[in-house]
Amino acid sequence: MNEFDRIARFFKPLAKDFPGALGLTDDAAIMQTPPGVDLVVTTDAMMEGVHFLGTDTPQSIAQRLLRSNLSDLAAMGAQPVSYTLVTALNKDVTDDWLQAFSETLQGDQKKYAIHLMGGDTVRSEGAMHFSITAFGVVPHGQLMRRTLKRAMMPSDVYDIYVSGTIGDSTLGLMAAQGKKLYGVNSDDIEFLKQRHYAPEPRLELARTIRTFALAAIDISDGLAADIGHMAVASQAQAIIEADKIPLSPAAKKALDAWPEHMEAILTGGEDYELAFIIDEREASLLKIAATKINVPLTKIGQLKYGEGGIQVLDANKRMMMLKQKGWQHF
Amino acid sequence: MNEFDRIARFFKPLAKDFPGALGLTDDAAIMQTPPGVDLVVTTDAMMEGVHFLGTDTPQSIAQRLLRSNLSDLAAMGAQPVSYTLVTALNKDVTDDWLQAFSETLQGDQKKYAIHLMGGDTVRSEGAMHFSITAFGVVPHGQLMRRTLKRAMMPSDVYDIYVSGTIGDSTLGLMAAQGKKLYGVNSDDIEFLKQRHYAPEPRLELARTIRTFALAAIDISDGLAADIGHMAVASQAQAIIEADKIPLSPAAKKALDAWPEHMEAILTGGEDYELAFIIDEREASLLKIAATKINVPLTKIGQLKYGEGGIQVLDANKRMMMLKQKGWQHF
Repeated sequence: MNEFDRIARFFKPLAKDFPGALGLTDDAAIMQTPPGVDLVVTTDAMMEGVHFLGTDTPQSIAQRLLRSNLSDLAAMGAQPVSYTLVTALNKDVTDDWLQAFSETLQGDQKKYAIHLMGGDTVRSEGAMHFSITAFGVVPHGQLMRRTLKRAMMPSDVYDIYVSGTIGDSTLGLMAAQGKKLYGVNSDDIEFLKQRHYAPEPRLELARTIRTFALAAIDISDGLAADIGHMAVASQAQAIIEADKIPLSPAAKKALDAWPEHMEAILTGGEDYELAFIIDEREASLLKIAATKINVPLTKIGQLKYGEGGIQVLDANKRMMMLKQKGWQHF
Repeated sequence: MNEFDRIARFFKPLAKDFPGALGLTDDAAIMQTPPGVDLVVTTDAMMEGVHFLGTDTPQSIAQRLLRSNLSDLAAMGAQPVSYTLVTALNKDVTDDWLQAFSETLQGDQKKYAIHLMGGDTVRSEGAMHFSITAFGVVPHGQLMRRTLKRAMMPSDVYDIYVSGTIGDSTLGLMAAQGKKLYGVNSDDIEFLKQRHYAPEPRLELARTIRTFALAAIDISDGLAADIGHMAVASQAQAIIEADKIPLSPAAKKALDAWPEHMEAILTGGEDYELAFIIDEREASLLKIAATKINVPLTKIGQLKYGEGGIQVLDANKRMMMLKQKGWQHF
């Protein structure tokens, strides 16, 4: 099949319910944004050999690609609308591969109420490349950013929360790369891998907290790096207590058996949980929110007036030295 | 320099005048569209070894990348607003290279009134990859598409026009690839190469004709292929007269010396001129438009009621057989 046939067979069905996609027949797509909302636009790219392996399943590549973008929308408080897709495919990509890739996107489109609206399909002579630009909407004034909504006063102290559990993705990736994890059974390993290959963007949480959270970020580069980004952007000091970081039973077992995993838990990327800042006077709003959604929310530290940076304290309140603050994409 | 340093040095300056870019500090950008306009979104990707060579200059890569996207906006009648950029760079890319790439984008941003608002910078282990998603606006109801605004009646005959000159880009690419062109001098070759490496998106023409043109497309895959796309989308028959196709003096000399170049002129891609459909009753509007803008507009054929397809006639009105209707991207 040539480019046009493949677009018709594998990508047109993904665009059929979005009128602005124009059936993928034109060179561009059309959107209108209703008054009173901001359009949020995010782009995430994945390169074979860097972000995924050629032997990864098309399902896992499709899920990580779309969901990492959805997680960026969640971090801003936006709800998904549509996306454009760039695929650079090489000769190894079969029609069966594309079929599985496309079906996975179709499943996620239903799950997250998002539609394909355009993109480009090019040929690669070597490594595969995928990127998505995703579009979401947020009511005007409810946008969350990594920068605090209001500047800190010297007397201000805010709470730092995270959703879900941290470190599963990086432990799952280690297991997938053949590294031995101690203290865990095969079900645990399956769970950890699943958290890496099929992350869960926190869209419902984002919609619930965006009216009162003071700042938010998704944990893609690593907990310490991303909370560090937030603290630097806000010119504030983040203090994280490592023993408060929420862990899954599988991650807890792995950490108990090998305490050095704490470094990976703090710096490993791609959890796609949200970290966010709450004024404790609004803790009651957060409690109400937490009862509505089925995602654990855990206070892991505080944000204080300061220079802009992050400190991680161990169980004895001593500052931990991290070799690496987060995954450098470049 | 790491990813964050490179973004700060080479890409942040490109985003400084677009408030919705949020200084490239967040994971997403923000847009609002004024009431009464459609937002037009297009994506074009370029892969090293397929769309450009690693030895191509950063200037030419940046220009072809951004301008091919701008040409898609022009085809829809849209005016540029902003864009997101994905770069997958390998170890060969130096800071000097990125500096030249970024400065070229900066120059084009001023020329075309467009701003960087986000994107992603990833590492490649092999070939480089670039893609842009560009955003434009068009007043509601003035969108041009490759499909006719109104369905054809059996008695309808419309005129097919193209802007500028056709075939320069493909001849310039041949010359750049070391193929010998006869009948041309070194200035001609320089002109043809320039047309390939620095195409001129027809944004002003688009704004002028969008109120009365019945359909439009930009010539990226090749004249025959793209007018064919338009005819198929409109379920109409396009008849093109090869000897009416506007040629630059350089292309004319090359064609006179080697008549077989007509095949390349008809099927070579990346002219980034506009082909568009005019009802002859509105030819007076087109004449007024043509006096306003400094781009030649040439009638090269007709669109008739029919099955959906294209015929190219030679000077003796005989149907030409083309080996290849246009560049297949995949």
